[in-house]
Amino acid sequence: MPTKQPVAIVFDTFGTVVDWRSSLIADLTAYGSGRGVTADWPALVDAWRAAYHPSMDRVRTGELPWTTLDNLHRASLDRLVTEFGIKGLSEDDLTHINLGWHRLHPWPDAVPGLTRLKSRFIIGPLSNGNVSLLLNMAKFSSIPWDMIFGSDLFGHFKPDPETYLGVAKMLNVRPDQVMMAAAHNGDLAKARACGLLTAFFPRPGEYGPNQKRDYAAEQDWDIVATDIQDVAAKLGV
Amino acid sequence: MPTKQPVAIVFDTFGTVVDWRSSLIADLTAYGSGRGVTADWPALVDAWRAAYHPSMDRVRTGELPWTTLDNLHRASLDRLVTEFGIKGLSEDDLTHINLGWHRLHPWPDAVPGLTRLKSRFIIGPLSNGNVSLLLNMAKFSSIPWDMIFGSDLFGHFKPDPETYLGVAKMLNVRPDQVMMAAAHNGDLAKARACGLLTAFFPRPGEYGPNQKRDYAAEQDWDIVATDIQDVAAKLGV
Repeated sequence: MPTKQPVAIVFDTFGTVVDWRSSLIADLTAYGSGRGVTADWPALVDAWRAAYHPSMDRVRTGELPWTTLDNLHRASLDRLVTEFGIKGLSEDDLTHINLGWHRLHPWPDAVPGLTRLKSRFIIGPLSNGNVSLLLNMAKFSSIPWDMIFGSDLFGHFKPDPETYLGVAKMLNVRPDQVMMAAAHNGDLAKARACGLLTAFFPRPGEYGPNQKRDYAAEQDWDIVATDIQDVAAKLGV
Repeated sequence: MPTKQPVAIVFDTFGTVVDWRSSLIADLTAYGSGRGVTADWPALVDAWRAAYHPSMDRVRTGELPWTTLDNLHRASLDRLVTEFGIKGLSEDDLTHINLGWHRLHPWPDAVPGLTRLKSRFIIGPLSNGNVSLLLNMAKFSSIPWDMIFGSDLFGHFKPDPETYLGVAKMLNVRPDQVMMAAAHNGDLAKARACGLLTAFFPRPGEYGPNQKRDYAAEQDWDIVATDIQDVAAKLGV
């Protein structure tokens, strides 16, 4: 057990709590089949995710005003549908596909592990998703968050410090009373730089055959675990 | 069942979900007894609550910059401790007493009724409390909110329209897809003016012997119920 017990634990969500890649590939493949629309859906999903950081960077650098992740996803989708030459999708289809990010399934350990942690700590996502995305996902997948720390609450995307410090401010606690949990070393490094506690566990299947990093802890994070159930065990709950 | 089913139901909290008066009187009486501090705690609680609207109005009119309800409560408490001639309270005591608003107990129907509603709708408090107050209260009393709509998310107190409309915007739905539930006709009138659906149920014991109003619905609210369990029944869950 680490010396310091947090008051709250906030979780990166895409990849850390939910398996976005498998969920979206299954969701879009089934939807395309039902609508008679042919496409290389796995490749579309990978290209869509590849557009994630560059699209947020346009906001973070000031090129775009504040834009929710839902709207960034939609702009990337529109571009990719053209690039992939996908035909026959109506506006309703595109809206439905874009909301695929609200219909992601958790990794098997996530809901039982979070349920254990919720018994002692405040738990919430600290994600680049907007509140409505994260809330709809929580309802869809029965994720038992206490509070949704969507990026729209702060008007900033991670890794801007306004997100990590914004959680502490909103909870009226010190930064070192908040623990950031993520499957991504980079996210944790930025959280630690803001004074937060950190918990790492790997998700080696997040990117499928395209995974290139985050197989193991790269710093002496306060907790290094195998998954969320193991985070709970290491915190003694 | 009303024609329109909401996507989300947001609840006034003090008085509507939790019994602030009985909770605080019991909490402060026990604490004072343990600390050997004598006071007319019921009268202090009533005076403290009487300071609630005037203190928020100082923010709403621009006399004060944005101030959380926790901090308004504390300023009122400091004044009242002097006015009531209460002696022997340390800074730690005052902090503990002020956080009594985080330790309020729900009315008996609240948690079972909200649990039913949560199965179909997004549920959250829409309260003048700040996020940390409402979140600590939810943890203390096992209130199963999906999301905490604290006044600090909007930088406004009810009945400013930014609060009611802010929920719809944050959820990316129309105002008439959000239902405001309250034991206070005035709150519902302001919510309806913003286009929200409305649900009323009375809490005739909220103010103890000092209750003066809100014994019954004063408009044809979309739902008029006896309590939160009955709201669930009237929505068919």
